[in-house]
Amino acid sequence: MTIRIGIMGYGNLGRGVELAVGQNPDMELAAVFTRRDPALLKPLSPQTRVMRTSEAGAMKDEIDVMIVCGGSATDLPSQTPQYASMFNIVDSFDTHARIPEHFAAVDAAASKAGKLALISAGWDPGLFSLNRLIASAVLPEGKDYTFWGPGVSQGHSDAIRRIPGVKNGKQYTMPVESALESVRSGAMPNLGTRQKHTRVCYVVAEEGADKKAIEQAIVTMPNYFDEYDTTVHFISEDEFVRGHSAMPHGGFVLRSGVSGSGTPQLYEFSLKLGSNPEFTSSVLCACARAVARLASEGRTGAVTLFDIPPACYSPLGAAELRAHLL
Amino acid sequence: MTIRIGIMGYGNLGRGVELAVGQNPDMELAAVFTRRDPALLKPLSPQTRVMRTSEAGAMKDEIDVMIVCGGSATDLPSQTPQYASMFNIVDSFDTHARIPEHFAAVDAAASKAGKLALISAGWDPGLFSLNRLIASAVLPEGKDYTFWGPGVSQGHSDAIRRIPGVKNGKQYTMPVESALESVRSGAMPNLGTRQKHTRVCYVVAEEGADKKAIEQAIVTMPNYFDEYDTTVHFISEDEFVRGHSAMPHGGFVLRSGVSGSGTPQLYEFSLKLGSNPEFTSSVLCACARAVARLASEGRTGAVTLFDIPPACYSPLGAAELRAHLL
Repeated sequence: MTIRIGIMGYGNLGRGVELAVGQNPDMELAAVFTRRDPALLKPLSPQTRVMRTSEAGAMKDEIDVMIVCGGSATDLPSQTPQYASMFNIVDSFDTHARIPEHFAAVDAAASKAGKLALISAGWDPGLFSLNRLIASAVLPEGKDYTFWGPGVSQGHSDAIRRIPGVKNGKQYTMPVESALESVRSGAMPNLGTRQKHTRVCYVVAEEGADKKAIEQAIVTMPNYFDEYDTTVHFISEDEFVRGHSAMPHGGFVLRSGVSGSGTPQLYEFSLKLGSNPEFTSSVLCACARAVARLASEGRTGAVTLFDIPPACYSPLGAAELRAHLL
Repeated sequence: MTIRIGIMGYGNLGRGVELAVGQNPDMELAAVFTRRDPALLKPLSPQTRVMRTSEAGAMKDEIDVMIVCGGSATDLPSQTPQYASMFNIVDSFDTHARIPEHFAAVDAAASKAGKLALISAGWDPGLFSLNRLIASAVLPEGKDYTFWGPGVSQGHSDAIRRIPGVKNGKQYTMPVESALESVRSGAMPNLGTRQKHTRVCYVVAEEGADKKAIEQAIVTMPNYFDEYDTTVHFISEDEFVRGHSAMPHGGFVLRSGVSGSGTPQLYEFSLKLGSNPEFTSSVLCACARAVARLASEGRTGAVTLFDIPPACYSPLGAAELRAHLL
């Protein structure tokens, strides 16, 4: 059975899903939905059908799972419940503190409509969360650590670009290698914000701008940089385009614990991603497969990765998985 | 609700489960069952009730999950189906090639009795398998790598000890660091047996034994050592006891893949275990919690980690998990 995917929103994530659907032979792309004028939108593949968001309702019977690719700040809180009343849904809602209220809103809409909605898929929240859960269940006595990076933080890069005199800028979050090694040694250190991550910024200044003032504005910026050791590098527009156009990211989830007799046990999960949005999109597609399968079994309401039997992510059958991957 | 655990078999794994139950406040140990004379068996805790395996049937209503801690070669193929007709079960059956037939036998017994049995729990098979499954579903274009060690291989240590003139011996499986680094670089190398692992042996020779002959017997032993680069160190009994009494193990599961536009993406999971049997036992306890929960919902038959919604491993409720671990 081919799983027919819809993409709601066509930014970096939506384009990533378009690519990821192409890597999964059991999926096909039914349509991309955009708030822009469809005639002006250039999809990666010329075969991709582009429609207005207002036309989504008409596609109810032609889409098995709608992947909602909006932003967590303003799009998803309204979009996911809205479309969960028409479609089975996957989203990547990533505002950790607001997950409970988002879950409740989506659960109400999906349950009422008899649809299934998987929220907060991706890698954090997502695969990182899954590993935090399993590690803490397996090692009840222990300490959790999450490190992010090396990788680009979109929010911090945006903050840099809003500073007067900045033409372009990108911020990399870097895990502190010595802190990681200390965790791996089993020492279970208490690590403050400054001890876990540093921030490195690459800035293109406008001609004649005061670089000292820009640097000062960055390193003292409350909430974003003031609690971190931050390094600022000024580079040319040329260097910026050549060296800083990708969106790499990744990170580490560790649990350092002890088993019964005080024996040290270390659990580690990590990702090194060439493209953050493309990897997130790949996770969303595997989740769409799980949603299609569970929805066909009659499951409704909101769920997260915590509720999904892992076999549902795979195109392989249960017997094949046991024989070859177990 | 307290989960009442039974332990069938009291070797390294059974003792590990006894310790792990003590780390989980929602569990209690109902009894340990042994084929030996219970009066002669010294449990780690004096409170632990020790009974004969023949008495297990009488404990049917006092045990929620029986953890079968026998060996995969001869014990589990008969024990797991036998006890699955009386109890909900967790086992750590680890003969990969025979998992399908073991699954079928356990499924038949458990289904008939209306019990739930989770087989092949632990770390490989187990957490490693789970990561192989998820990684391949998320990155359909890629290559899988599993490295084991550094760690003690029981089978290889036994093989050394059977050589004439060997008083004691232990074998460590070592991942080849340069091969691991090559995988992490995204190069997707094709790695043969010899390129992934080396074997290091610590041997106590009997007085007057021919060490050259022992070394030769080890490095040329078919199936065990002949396909590997093997190093043999002769040490004193004293050094052996001081330095080689623990059972460390671990390893790495990696998937190196590309997302849609050819972007490299690296997925890595690893364990560094101070004690292999104690960690396996910790996984078995988390699995017992999942079995108790799913059995109480009416689930029966055989399952593996691939079928378990991860939330079931945790003592925390669904809302708490979403609020704090997602």
